[in-house]
Amino acid sequence: MSGIDEVQVQGMPRVLCDWGSSRLRAFLQIDGAIAERRDGPGIAALGAEAPAEVLARVLAPWRARMTFERTVLCGMAGSRNGLVEVPYVRAPATLSQWRAGAATVHAGADTFTVLAGIQAQNFRDVADVMRGEETQIFGALALEPALAAGRRMLVLPGTHCKWVEVRDGRIARLQTYFTGELFELLSTRSSLLRVGSAGEPDEEGFEVGLRNAARFDLAANLFETRSAQLIEGRTAGWARSLLSGLLIGAEVHSMRAHLQASGSVPTLIGEPALTDRYARALASFGTEARVLDGDRCVLAGLGAAVAGLTQA
Amino acid sequence: MSGIDEVQVQGMPRVLCDWGSSRLRAFLQIDGAIAERRDGPGIAALGAEAPAEVLARVLAPWRARMTFERTVLCGMAGSRNGLVEVPYVRAPATLSQWRAGAATVHAGADTFTVLAGIQAQNFRDVADVMRGEETQIFGALALEPALAAGRRMLVLPGTHCKWVEVRDGRIARLQTYFTGELFELLSTRSSLLRVGSAGEPDEEGFEVGLRNAARFDLAANLFETRSAQLIEGRTAGWARSLLSGLLIGAEVHSMRAHLQASGSVPTLIGEPALTDRYARALASFGTEARVLDGDRCVLAGLGAAVAGLTQA
Repeated sequence: MSGIDEVQVQGMPRVLCDWGSSRLRAFLQIDGAIAERRDGPGIAALGAEAPAEVLARVLAPWRARMTFERTVLCGMAGSRNGLVEVPYVRAPATLSQWRAGAATVHAGADTFTVLAGIQAQNFRDVADVMRGEETQIFGALALEPALAAGRRMLVLPGTHCKWVEVRDGRIARLQTYFTGELFELLSTRSSLLRVGSAGEPDEEGFEVGLRNAARFDLAANLFETRSAQLIEGRTAGWARSLLSGLLIGAEVHSMRAHLQASGSVPTLIGEPALTDRYARALASFGTEARVLDGDRCVLAGLGAAVAGLTQA
Repeated sequence: MSGIDEVQVQGMPRVLCDWGSSRLRAFLQIDGAIAERRDGPGIAALGAEAPAEVLARVLAPWRARMTFERTVLCGMAGSRNGLVEVPYVRAPATLSQWRAGAATVHAGADTFTVLAGIQAQNFRDVADVMRGEETQIFGALALEPALAAGRRMLVLPGTHCKWVEVRDGRIARLQTYFTGELFELLSTRSSLLRVGSAGEPDEEGFEVGLRNAARFDLAANLFETRSAQLIEGRTAGWARSLLSGLLIGAEVHSMRAHLQASGSVPTLIGEPALTDRYARALASFGTEARVLDGDRCVLAGLGAAVAGLTQA
């Protein structure tokens, strides 16, 4: 127990959580450094168990060894089905405005701080929302202060990809693309890929998808995923890569005018496998991109949020 | 049995079948008129039972009472998973060229004629295919000979909607839109509609969807189905209608240049519930449409195919 005692002398440990639809990732922070990580189910996969019970179960091994200063959570933890529903903070929003929207819940000796999501107008001037990506964005601004100057486009691929315009450090506009979930549905549940042989992912298929996305609309392009297998003998692996190119390409094509208007190199934030694909799609439209790791950004964002909280 | 004897004096009965992915519809034709109808499972829903066994089971009650001159089938009956794989006839294709592509199979005392599908280039000059819709098209040309003159656009909504250009009675070009299957997937399997209250279909939602489809691309529009419920308190019924308008609107928008180029009023062929939606979508883009009933067309097409077959 000496390690724990030592820790408590220097400052109480904190728990930082990124709790999205598909998974919970909890990080134990001791003296400003991440000491351990534990995973749990996403908010959309909880079943009958209450979110607070799930969280207690995931954190139990740490709790048995130490007392936390607080637990800070971002993402779907603040949604209707989460730990506590936290109203969206409206854009334009600075770090401190976002931080002020957090809800703090005391349960026995425990303190939970659930961070807010952001509501912003999208590039078509329709209201749009995010929960979790704002934490990565404020993390990116903390890691790369240059991003807080001028007009910047940040792109966060995932189940729902978020394109976020940041102006002088404020989250200004936000547009959601349904690309990740659409790819998952179409590749596993539709007739588009149930035709031919299996086959491995194929880079050429992805490139053809990107090219077609630049020339024709998505509705017109989709069925080629099936007909390429039926008529041209393409493998299902090739067709799956084609579909990926068509969908990511359609998204980049859809945003190209706003990309140009932003006048700076866009920043991709996420898992390397996904940011690589988006970087290639952007390159095919003549746009280079900078890439930041999603995990680094979410931890930096949770840290930036917690840095401004009262140590109550 | 006297009615049957009388029939056999005048000409042997035939069976005409429209056997698609989702259902089998068999029509008993006696002296040129449809006397009875029986339904069975679609080719995509057969499970372990062989197509020939399923067909024999569905037709058994008729077979017990009479002998058929032949059984004529269109649609997925001629696909890889159907009764016998019939190669696509290549466009441009006249009625007699299409008819010549049929495969006739003798099994015991029975004769089965399985009609071909059509392969054609689409409006992006990529190969595309159909199985079943060509029968409705040649049926429409038989019912409305004016459609066989000049350049015509025929639109056949369904799981996969087919836009078919007919030139002087030849099927010339073919473009498939994945709209029906996409709507089914997105409305039952995605997170887009799993948010709010239920609610009835809402015509205003459909109209908003059509308007947005005219202004923005599909990828950018889709997520509004979810955010309209989360932020604006729309019911799931309204959002479902919005999604329908977005998808059908995207399809019509995608084809609008070719519609204008065809220079004539397009003809919608299908089930009234679907052709009504497409007619409204076309109207919102300033195009009026003529409507033909899908069942009438498929029977006329099966009749037109069989009229040219040898009575062997």
